[in-house]
Amino acid sequence: MNQYPASIVNLIQQLAKLPGIGTKTAERLAMYLLKTSRDEVSQLARSLLLVKDKVQLCTRCFGMSDEPLCRICSNPARDEGVLCVVEQPTDMAAIEKSGAFRGLYHILHGTLAPMEGIGPEDIRIGELLERIARDEICEVIIATGTSVEGESTAAYLSERLKERPVKVSRIASGVPVGGDLKYIDQVTLKRAMECRHEF
Amino acid sequence: MNQYPASIVNLIQQLAKLPGIGTKTAERLAMYLLKTSRDEVSQLARSLLLVKDKVQLCTRCFGMSDEPLCRICSNPARDEGVLCVVEQPTDMAAIEKSGAFRGLYHILHGTLAPMEGIGPEDIRIGELLERIARDEICEVIIATGTSVEGESTAAYLSERLKERPVKVSRIASGVPVGGDLKYIDQVTLKRAMECRHEF
Repeated sequence: MNQYPASIVNLIQQLAKLPGIGTKTAERLAMYLLKTSRDEVSQLARSLLLVKDKVQLCTRCFGMSDEPLCRICSNPARDEGVLCVVEQPTDMAAIEKSGAFRGLYHILHGTLAPMEGIGPEDIRIGELLERIARDEICEVIIATGTSVEGESTAAYLSERLKERPVKVSRIASGVPVGGDLKYIDQVTLKRAMECRHEF
Repeated sequence: MNQYPASIVNLIQQLAKLPGIGTKTAERLAMYLLKTSRDEVSQLARSLLLVKDKVQLCTRCFGMSDEPLCRICSNPARDEGVLCVVEQPTDMAAIEKSGAFRGLYHILHGTLAPMEGIGPEDIRIGELLERIARDEICEVIIATGTSVEGESTAAYLSERLKERPVKVSRIASGVPVGGDLKYIDQVTLKRAMECRHEF
């Protein structure tokens, strides 16, 4: 990259560290940024730092928040009796986007993975059990992923919650809506058959 | 995007302004940046601002530079008698990458486009003519693009340079190396036939 001045080479290298952005794209972005007004570029730079300075974990659900209590946890319109347990903040964002849930969340920040040494004490399961006891939760929906780790975490949680006076459910898995059967993998199809329900 | 705190929404919006980056990719990048150390993010922010503060046009060739005179213009090993005229700094970067040229450059910063009101005085043609007269240039290679505008700018330049005591040439156009003839467009093939040369 000797054809560029040092400051541009530096920017290209920084941009190329981002996921899914190779040197070519980084070069294109750098050229765009060179043409953009200083104002806009400094706005972008400020947003980057702001996110690192402001975003913290919500003290209740461990989702991402600008405040100690996140927007969902502090919203009085949400149903405080129902908890949806997810792996990551991005999962919570996806469910929120769907608009299908009006309760509160609990973010585990990971899944059980004994092979990698990740046990129940390494993710926020202890906090979940405490919260269920403390906050008069009546239903827990386990919405961890359908990977091996997600499923085993769900199984572990349902086992741990068995003796608690709380309804425990698991989100359904099966054929995606609009999915063409011939393109769906066999494991999903098998699951969809097993979990069939009556009309 | 109500599912994210305000500072993240802000970052996503800023990132989505970049070319080729939609909301989905911006979301993915924001999530990555949230996980990255503050140090790395502030490095990126600094690089962004540095580029806006340092990069200027070289006073001689009008390429991008961190200094008043760019790395190529100030390199005594380059052949000062040969000028390669290109449209944009990125074209110069592409030729440099190929390693095929050891002279100096002149960047026009555009092409003639009479329909859009861009005439010879709007791009750096005056500076080119001055430079040729002043700097004892013996050869000018016109490497503007092969678009209609690039070709007409090349024709205009060769016309203007006719009476000057300088050799004027145009980069060859034809079938790209490794190009399969059946995939090459007709105009390029026609050009390749017309510009054929003897073995």
